[in-house]
Amino acid sequence: MDYLIEIGKRAKDASMIMNLLNTETKNRGLKKVAEALVNESSKILKANREDVEKAEKNGMKPSMVDRLMLSEDRIKGMAEGLLQLIDLKDPIGEVMERFERPNGLLIEKKRVPMGVVGIIYESRPNVTADAFGLCFKAGNAVILRGGSDALTSNAAIVNVIREALHAENLPADAIQLIEDASRETAAEFMKLNKYVDLLIPRGGAGLIRTVVSNSTIPVIETGTGNCHIYVDESANLLMAVEIIDNAKTQRMGVCNACESLVIHKNIAKEAVPAIYERLHGKSVEVRGCEESRKDCGGIVPATEEDYGTEYCDAIISMKVVDSVDEAIAHVNRYTTHHSEAIITENKENAEKFLSEVDAAAVYVNASTRFTDGYEFGFGAEIGISTQKLHARGPMGLPALTTIKYVIHGSGQIRS
Amino acid sequence: MDYLIEIGKRAKDASMIMNLLNTETKNRGLKKVAEALVNESSKILKANREDVEKAEKNGMKPSMVDRLMLSEDRIKGMAEGLLQLIDLKDPIGEVMERFERPNGLLIEKKRVPMGVVGIIYESRPNVTADAFGLCFKAGNAVILRGGSDALTSNAAIVNVIREALHAENLPADAIQLIEDASRETAAEFMKLNKYVDLLIPRGGAGLIRTVVSNSTIPVIETGTGNCHIYVDESANLLMAVEIIDNAKTQRMGVCNACESLVIHKNIAKEAVPAIYERLHGKSVEVRGCEESRKDCGGIVPATEEDYGTEYCDAIISMKVVDSVDEAIAHVNRYTTHHSEAIITENKENAEKFLSEVDAAAVYVNASTRFTDGYEFGFGAEIGISTQKLHARGPMGLPALTTIKYVIHGSGQIRS
Repeated sequence: MDYLIEIGKRAKDASMIMNLLNTETKNRGLKKVAEALVNESSKILKANREDVEKAEKNGMKPSMVDRLMLSEDRIKGMAEGLLQLIDLKDPIGEVMERFERPNGLLIEKKRVPMGVVGIIYESRPNVTADAFGLCFKAGNAVILRGGSDALTSNAAIVNVIREALHAENLPADAIQLIEDASRETAAEFMKLNKYVDLLIPRGGAGLIRTVVSNSTIPVIETGTGNCHIYVDESANLLMAVEIIDNAKTQRMGVCNACESLVIHKNIAKEAVPAIYERLHGKSVEVRGCEESRKDCGGIVPATEEDYGTEYCDAIISMKVVDSVDEAIAHVNRYTTHHSEAIITENKENAEKFLSEVDAAAVYVNASTRFTDGYEFGFGAEIGISTQKLHARGPMGLPALTTIKYVIHGSGQIRS
Repeated sequence: MDYLIEIGKRAKDASMIMNLLNTETKNRGLKKVAEALVNESSKILKANREDVEKAEKNGMKPSMVDRLMLSEDRIKGMAEGLLQLIDLKDPIGEVMERFERPNGLLIEKKRVPMGVVGIIYESRPNVTADAFGLCFKAGNAVILRGGSDALTSNAAIVNVIREALHAENLPADAIQLIEDASRETAAEFMKLNKYVDLLIPRGGAGLIRTVVSNSTIPVIETGTGNCHIYVDESANLLMAVEIIDNAKTQRMGVCNACESLVIHKNIAKEAVPAIYERLHGKSVEVRGCEESRKDCGGIVPATEEDYGTEYCDAIISMKVVDSVDEAIAHVNRYTTHHSEAIITENKENAEKFLSEVDAAAVYVNASTRFTDGYEFGFGAEIGISTQKLHARGPMGLPALTTIKYVIHGSGQIRS
């Protein structure tokens, strides 16, 4: 624990300095760090090779090894990501509201950095530079706890960043890595609420559940998405098929991919076979309710569990319903509050769905795959919040800030 | 646990209905509930007498009995509070941002209710009606867990409210009380994150620590205030004495009262005796550092612990410092991030203090007692947040809301 407290104190001290940096200085830091990553890429690649060799020896799945592996190009991509942050508007210092009270007090609501941000993530080492860049631009210090598989790579990346900051007279402790990859240390990290203002877990449902259950630091839950597309009776069927194909198959492993279909019974006879044909043609297994299987022999029976599963794989569930109300009830029962869509030509049903479904992003006639900081035009993304506190949906720089009331008086006392 | 899950489910169902109510309907509900509280006041007073008699028999302190006790006037005050909410702007439905993406997607960021709010509080039964009113106006269902001393009173108030809602065809489950006052049930309530979207503890530091340590529901910490006033070397001493007197003695037991003074050494010789005289004249004990005691014999020696204590009583601590930097470091070391003030005629020092001190509200030349939803002009207050996530400082209706991205498309898919 002493190790973590030391890290916490250093981060807090660094955050005090970060709080005072102007935009120009922060942008200069980002530029220098980006250059250093490219210049020192051989060091990073050497460290990464160690991780990859160990992972292969331990029999890691090739798709996971691919997530872990870095290359000159991937490092250039990391540097590119940091350079893109330079052009983004600095959220810090914005006066969001200003009002004068009858007693003459002038109250300003000002945007200020969050302070110290903790991030717990899994394999991909490029998250290390991404997370640093966003936290840094928003004036925060960050403490990272990456996956144990990527420890050597992450340590190398963090070292390069720290040295670049130090050379620029900027606080190296604006980024620190927890190099002890044990579960015990991770659990203790989650109790560091004296020093850490916000904890963001990025990873699978298991990681997120563990963090929510154990953290005394305020948490923003991210990422799990059991996203539905509801095909209303008035849907344009061609549009529905295109959107479902895109939302399911454009990229299978991501949180905004579609995992479950809901079909109005009055369109089921046409829609079910059409959707099945398209998905089957892309090797997606369709698991459906009894009603859906009437119209289409290729559909495998769905269990209750299927409707609650985020597959992240070439499987999708399907349920035929009697009404838009039943569709909404079904979605609200199984939703992870990420992204939900209705395909319809009926404005009333669209409005009903949009207002009654409880999710971060609700769509009419578009793919759920658009729930993304870049697609929303935020220019960057630290994750997608599926909770309701502080930030919901794609989180850009403002999610890494808080506010402060600054009050100017001239001797006012309360009577 | 089954008991709580049942409460959670009912609240979730009620929140779905609340989500769809327009402003007029919610205001009608508030009016009817206010009328019912006054009309049924004899029932409430009878229940309250039971609580008070039990408390007196158990030897409760008179000041605590006073907090517990209701009267016709206090019930009228509760009703009045609900009626005031009618005039407040309904935050729900506000489109905070609207932007069109190059692909034609129209994205709206809309304010929606939080859903289900949990509130854990201590003795005062008037919080029951207050908390209901704010949650209701913001379109939420609320689950209350009050202090065991006030259980009979709270149950009576909640019954009156539920009956009034039912009579108006509004969801009675928009308010529910956990009638099992055991600690075990409270601990289980904090794990109800499947049904409860936000948990607000209102009470002492111990309650808040317990909630932060145990809750899996996102929490907003409220209320503890170890508030400082720093008297800079350039301060107007008369103003400083008036502000300190007000911040300390106008109301001792509240979170925005001043608990600690920091004095620049160059003004200490004049300031320390002047401040001491004023506070001593109001029976406030001053506990100071060695330096402060040089100039004033009546000051009692302060221990390290004193600087970290929120007294809520007629005691104040005092520390003499060499510079504004030392003052800021001292404040940042002991602050509970609530309200901190500088008294100065020097603009540079004021700006330095305002930007470097890490608190929800930072003041120049005014009393810390202004950190309050009514004083800020919010018209209502559910508490004062001392954390950085979601809401900071006085929380009005918007703190009980979240956002939702509503996206209109015409068949867009991601490429």
